[in-house]
Amino acid sequence: EILGFLDRMYPIDIATVLEEFDDEYLYKFKSFIPIEQMAEIIEQAGEKFQIRFLKLLHYDEIVTFFAYMSNDDIADILGRLPIKIRKALLTMMKSGDTKQIQELLGYAEDSAGGIMTTEYIALKEDLSIADTLKKIKEIGPKTEVIETIYVLNRKKELVGIADLRDILIAPENQKLMDIMNENVVSVKPEEDQEIVAWLVSKYDLNAIPVVNHRNSLLGIVTVDDIIDVIVEEQTEDILRLGGVSKEERVDSSLFTSIRKRLPWLIINLGTAFLASFTVGLFEDVISQVVALAAAMPIVAGMGGNAGSQTLSLVIRSIALGEISLKKNWKLVFKEISLGVINGAFIGIFTGMILYMRYGNPYLGIIIFAAMIGNLVIAGFFGFLIPLILKVLRVDPALASSIFLTTATDVFGFFLFLGLAKMFLPYLL
Amino acid sequence: EILGFLDRMYPIDIATVLEEFDDEYLYKFKSFIPIEQMAEIIEQAGEKFQIRFLKLLHYDEIVTFFAYMSNDDIADILGRLPIKIRKALLTMMKSGDTKQIQELLGYAEDSAGGIMTTEYIALKEDLSIADTLKKIKEIGPKTEVIETIYVLNRKKELVGIADLRDILIAPENQKLMDIMNENVVSVKPEEDQEIVAWLVSKYDLNAIPVVNHRNSLLGIVTVDDIIDVIVEEQTEDILRLGGVSKEERVDSSLFTSIRKRLPWLIINLGTAFLASFTVGLFEDVISQVVALAAAMPIVAGMGGNAGSQTLSLVIRSIALGEISLKKNWKLVFKEISLGVINGAFIGIFTGMILYMRYGNPYLGIIIFAAMIGNLVIAGFFGFLIPLILKVLRVDPALASSIFLTTATDVFGFFLFLGLAKMFLPYLL
Ligand SMILES: [Mg+2]
Ligand SMILES: [Mg+2]
Ligand SMILES: [Mg+2]
Ligand SMILES: [Mg+2]
Ligand SMILES: [Mg+2]
Ligand SMILES: [Mg+2]
Ligand SMILES: [Mg+2]
Ligand SMILES: [Mg+2]
Ligand SMILES: [Mg+2]
Ligand SMILES: [Mg+2]
Ligand SMILES: [Mg+2]
Ligand SMILES: [Mg+2]
Ligand SMILES: [Mg+2]
Repeated sequence: EILGFLDRMYPIDIATVLEEFDDEYLYKFKSFIPIEQMAEIIEQAGEKFQIRFLKLLHYDEIVTFFAYMSNDDIADILGRLPIKIRKALLTMMKSGDTKQIQELLGYAEDSAGGIMTTEYIALKEDLSIADTLKKIKEIGPKTEVIETIYVLNRKKELVGIADLRDILIAPENQKLMDIMNENVVSVKPEEDQEIVAWLVSKYDLNAIPVVNHRNSLLGIVTVDDIIDVIVEEQTEDILRLGGVSKEERVDSSLFTSIRKRLPWLIINLGTAFLASFTVGLFEDVISQVVALAAAMPIVAGMGGNAGSQTLSLVIRSIALGEISLKKNWKLVFKEISLGVINGAFIGIFTGMILYMRYGNPYLGIIIFAAMIGNLVIAGFFGFLIPLILKVLRVDPALASSIFLTTATDVFGFFLFLGLAKMFLPYLL
Repeated sequence: EILGFLDRMYPIDIATVLEEFDDEYLYKFKSFIPIEQMAEIIEQAGEKFQIRFLKLLHYDEIVTFFAYMSNDDIADILGRLPIKIRKALLTMMKSGDTKQIQELLGYAEDSAGGIMTTEYIALKEDLSIADTLKKIKEIGPKTEVIETIYVLNRKKELVGIADLRDILIAPENQKLMDIMNENVVSVKPEEDQEIVAWLVSKYDLNAIPVVNHRNSLLGIVTVDDIIDVIVEEQTEDILRLGGVSKEERVDSSLFTSIRKRLPWLIINLGTAFLASFTVGLFEDVISQVVALAAAMPIVAGMGGNAGSQTLSLVIRSIALGEISLKKNWKLVFKEISLGVINGAFIGIFTGMILYMRYGNPYLGIIIFAAMIGNLVIAGFFGFLIPLILKVLRVDPALASSIFLTTATDVFGFFLFLGLAKMFLPYLL
């Protein structure tokens, strides 16, 4: 009865439920569900659960489960197990799979090789359509992608892809080479997963082949895994922009959160002290015109806001592959103009309010000028910092905001308080 | 010769090149390239280019191009054309397509209906496998998805999906209902595209069916368009978090950028003034202990940093559907504890440096206490603001940071300067 109910549930949904079970219950559950279905559930479960579940099993049971799973998922799981267990399991597995899995384990986790699977249909170019259909029926049920058939020449090089639509309607005596498309977008196994995702998205592929330097087919990356990459990279960008490690989650343990966030706060403290020292240079001015202290948060705040506007636009454009320092540096002039215009608007507004509040027109004029200056600085650095970091191969999402804040705070305070010092007699 | 070269290029890449052409060149290019290929190029080009190109053509030429394009893409293009032109074109088109396209035009752009296509294979449940294969060969070349066949009952309700793998290996006299999977994940046409994308990603689908309240199949959303949705929603989140409209791009015109960014800066100016007024309340204290002015940027800066750490974690968790106020409000206590601990660390450090700089231990103690207080405030509001906005159906990415900055600036300054006022005799 329960089995019938489980049959109507998706493996991923069952996995979500099982994650709440304790070990004893989990073991019981495993004993009465078919191996094949349990393997599918594990395959789709979260990393933590996978490891917890496998630790409940004997090695030979694990190997039995692996027989029902994709090579890419097995490699991912093995990669997370202690090396001793990993080796023991590999020794026990069928030798054919072992070789492929060991190859998969050799690639970096966030490379094309690290996310590819070895289950695809690759056939020889001189195969007839009749034989091709036979092969597809035979291998089809075991592959992730059936819509695209990869075509190899005698040297086992990838020479084309054949669309199942074309195969289905082609005359039986034609050959694969007659209907294949020779325009193949492929990647090398070392390619960064973000580039791979970008290609799949651009060309609307359901899978992208991974080939070595001799153009031999090593595997394919399927679109469902590409979606995971896109989501993961986006999580990384948003978290890094906010000064958080991509490994942290809202429900990470308190200790993990401290360990991940404190270092970043300490780096930011350095920036804060730079700003503080800048203000410290003008303590004599502030002590004479204390209204300056009240106006300081406005200068720093608006510089920060304008800067992060530019920054997020540029960082997103970089992530979408739309912009580079070499091609687009001229756009910095637009950001500078924008700083002048937006700065003038905000500056007039702020200046008038401060004039009304303190009755001194010069204070208003000074903040007007400082606002323009700081918004120009914000646009200039907000535009250039991420692009320069990109050239230096540092993730712009990771380090841009710390440099930007330093620039807008230090220059902003220096400009505002410096102007105040120059025109001090008018402010008294 | 050029045609041969173009044949080896992907439509999207040709589109990128054409976007640089001027109108005259573009028109010439159109005249010597096959209609079918040009239609594919337009289909994949950017919105701006599509409109520019179509404006070069006569209505009957446009209708000819449409004959080679997907209904979802035609509807998207028509939706961007002036209503007069749209109506004229619809009148000229084949009546069968017109009805479908008009239906598609009726859905909101960011709903399931707005991104679905009407080109799929749907067959009756009592069709034999032999007839199914015939139908697939017939309709297949014109559909986007061939791997999944949608199965309808006599009332035209969606009752299952059949995998082409199973169809290929099933005995010819079986019926579709014998091999179909009745577990269908589907969405209503009004569903938000973000939810649709989340389902496709969760269940690793290559397409998701869209059904009306009577469970009749209206269309399918394909995975390539889901990727575009995910990327678009990510762009929106990153830009909104940075205080930028999702419609702006780095290369938008200066005027557009001013119009999009200035309103947001003005809203932020309100926040900055709140902070400024808070500082203004303590001008007497600052005029007596001017070191406070130099320490102010540290308090505000660290509060802002800690707050944005929590904020980005929570906003990302919301986007991934992992967290809600109802289920997870208890995690706020973790953020508060984190504020105490990280605040104590940062506070000790800052206190000691200020002590060394100004020789007054009480200044150090005050900033220590203020730092803890401000980081607790940062964690508390950074956690709750986005979740409350979500409940109120306001996009957390849009409005969270403005409320958070207000909280950390106003409370931060109030706490720090308030403590300084209380212990003023010790600071002199
Ligand atoms: Mg899989
Ligand atoms: Mg892997
Ligand atoms: Mg695409
Ligand atoms: Mg996979
Ligand atoms: Mg998967
Ligand atoms: Mg990466
Ligand atoms: Mg990245
Ligand atoms: Mg649409
Ligand atoms: Mg949305
Ligand atoms: Mg998935
Ligand atoms: Mg489409
Ligand atoms: Mg498309
Ligand atoms: Mg959104």
